[in-house]
Amino acid sequence: MARLTIDLDAVRKNYLFLQNKVRKGCEVSAVVKANAYGLGVEAVSQTLHESGCKTFFVATLNEAIELRSFLGREPAIAMLNGYQIKNASLYRENDITPVLNDLSEIQNLKNTQNDLPAMIHIDTAMNRLGMNADDITPEIISNLNIKTIMSHFMSSEDNQTDLNAVQASRFEKLASQFPNIPKSLCNSSGIFLDASYHYQLVRPGMALYGLNPTPYAENPMQPVISLDAEILQIHTVKKGETAGYNATYCFEQDSTLAIVDIGYADGIFRSLSNAGSLYWNGIKCPIRGRVSMDLTIVDLCDVPENQRPKKGDHLEVIGLNQSADDLARDAGTIGYEVLTSLSRRHQRIHSDQDFIEVSMLTNHSLKSLPKE
Amino acid sequence: MARLTIDLDAVRKNYLFLQNKVRKGCEVSAVVKANAYGLGVEAVSQTLHESGCKTFFVATLNEAIELRSFLGREPAIAMLNGYQIKNASLYRENDITPVLNDLSEIQNLKNTQNDLPAMIHIDTAMNRLGMNADDITPEIISNLNIKTIMSHFMSSEDNQTDLNAVQASRFEKLASQFPNIPKSLCNSSGIFLDASYHYQLVRPGMALYGLNPTPYAENPMQPVISLDAEILQIHTVKKGETAGYNATYCFEQDSTLAIVDIGYADGIFRSLSNAGSLYWNGIKCPIRGRVSMDLTIVDLCDVPENQRPKKGDHLEVIGLNQSADDLARDAGTIGYEVLTSLSRRHQRIHSDQDFIEVSMLTNHSLKSLPKE
Repeated sequence: MARLTIDLDAVRKNYLFLQNKVRKGCEVSAVVKANAYGLGVEAVSQTLHESGCKTFFVATLNEAIELRSFLGREPAIAMLNGYQIKNASLYRENDITPVLNDLSEIQNLKNTQNDLPAMIHIDTAMNRLGMNADDITPEIISNLNIKTIMSHFMSSEDNQTDLNAVQASRFEKLASQFPNIPKSLCNSSGIFLDASYHYQLVRPGMALYGLNPTPYAENPMQPVISLDAEILQIHTVKKGETAGYNATYCFEQDSTLAIVDIGYADGIFRSLSNAGSLYWNGIKCPIRGRVSMDLTIVDLCDVPENQRPKKGDHLEVIGLNQSADDLARDAGTIGYEVLTSLSRRHQRIHSDQDFIEVSMLTNHSLKSLPKE
Repeated sequence: MARLTIDLDAVRKNYLFLQNKVRKGCEVSAVVKANAYGLGVEAVSQTLHESGCKTFFVATLNEAIELRSFLGREPAIAMLNGYQIKNASLYRENDITPVLNDLSEIQNLKNTQNDLPAMIHIDTAMNRLGMNADDITPEIISNLNIKTIMSHFMSSEDNQTDLNAVQASRFEKLASQFPNIPKSLCNSSGIFLDASYHYQLVRPGMALYGLNPTPYAENPMQPVISLDAEILQIHTVKKGETAGYNATYCFEQDSTLAIVDIGYADGIFRSLSNAGSLYWNGIKCPIRGRVSMDLTIVDLCDVPENQRPKKGDHLEVIGLNQSADDLARDAGTIGYEVLTSLSRRHQRIHSDQDFIEVSMLTNHSLKSLPKE
């Protein structure tokens, strides 16, 4: 069975690393939307809370309500997708801080519960969610309980582009009108750009989960996830035979294949067909033919005959030899999408210093094992 | 909130359509692995069982055990990923029929519980799971309880290739050695190739779920899923502005955008960036810039000003104007991967003739609503 391991101690270390990295007086929050980027929001957010995290960001109201049930009343939970008037009462009941994205949301909050803690999101370049800077004046938000004014970098993983400075300058111009309200600009990569961008709150996500926030340099974060897949069958092929659906790969020499129990339904993108690799004891084993829904065919051509894995052994999908960022590159995407695509079919193991929690997601059973 | 609707009545109609399509005496089973291709295995498999389906296929042992808990003792449940000796007792306890993929599995079954019903999987071309035809003789399986001998087409959605006839011929050659054992060769697309391929059992998956098993012709199946996303914000942009991460799209004219609450964490592949579209009242609204984790930016440029949607309206992602197959084409993949990627974050609605079941997957609550 494919096994996904999430190292909660690494999540903790990553949080503390960022806390140490930011300017004095800057709080490090955590973005745990999309099930903590696929890693399991309950275990991850509890670990972060225990590590000192006091503010969490999610995307949707459902996520916010679920997170509140895990974390108790103490931490702040901010919801990025705005203030939805039809669900007004749920914000206060669950102590959820809406991030206001347009003037209608400001008006709705004024009309319903103007003392509810809220944040203001300014769009400084993305044309995604958020207000135009011109829309916001101290008067407009004067009788609201605004805890933070924020914006979001669009290219912060690129430390050479001028776009970051342009956004920061737009944000600073606006921010200076609100000297008494805390500000927030940085996502994971933004934290590594310039300490003057840290303001009072930073909002890392991917860096906490071990992706590289500085692709122009070595990854400063601890790896968090590992994923391996079990060999269901060892198969020999002859030169001229083909692999997988539609015979998209033809073997140029006799070879030995391993068929592993992971496929695109498990988040191993079909775009890795004839493009990605798995690893056995550090040796690269290329994917041959199309990745199918539940299975992937890999070629053991570069593994010496006396070192070959056997049926029941596990090949590395993500681990020491291949990061989620590496796998994403082969798939033509980014590490974020690799993480959020990790299937509920995997056996998910949350490992910590003291115990391993095995969550069989298909049947919702849960048990704790002593750590190996 | 994004809403995924699964039309269980269409699943039923698709099952009956295939039952009517196959040769007399041929049973139609159902492939429900990977959470019924993402549609929700409990509701889908119960619907199929009620429609007369007596044999179900899954990939993994966990899936088989979970399915048994839904379906009771009656239907046969076959598990494609083989006979795993370490879990031998679970097969009998849960009445699971292993599909034997290599000689070691045959030997293991002989050594442990040779009366357990099992199937034999012959690889006729894919070099994925399955035995070589030469490995199997009547003697080798003589004291086993073999219910079916099967193989799997690799290109059956292509009715022009010779590969289907090659595989069928290899299978027939082998099958003739076992006159008393039922045979199975066809997946969804195989059913539409040639009635002589039907044998005693066919194994459709995608066709049940409304994907097109005959891409060379109009889809004979009923559409099953629809997916729409809520507009969180309407945004105006000026010529020369950009959209989304890394400013990968630049507007050539002033326009109006809708920001919707769906992204790659919801299965809207990042490869749809600047490539896919959503629909409003039948009008195509192209995706601009990068699809992000929770949000997508679409351009309302072709919607007349007096017909524009407003905040809170829903845009069609999959539905009347765009099938899962269409969306897959824009994303550079196949409809199967679209289905299996549908996120647990969606509000999943199982609609039937009599009731709608709303499953809020994030908090596992479940309620029934009168049908609209």
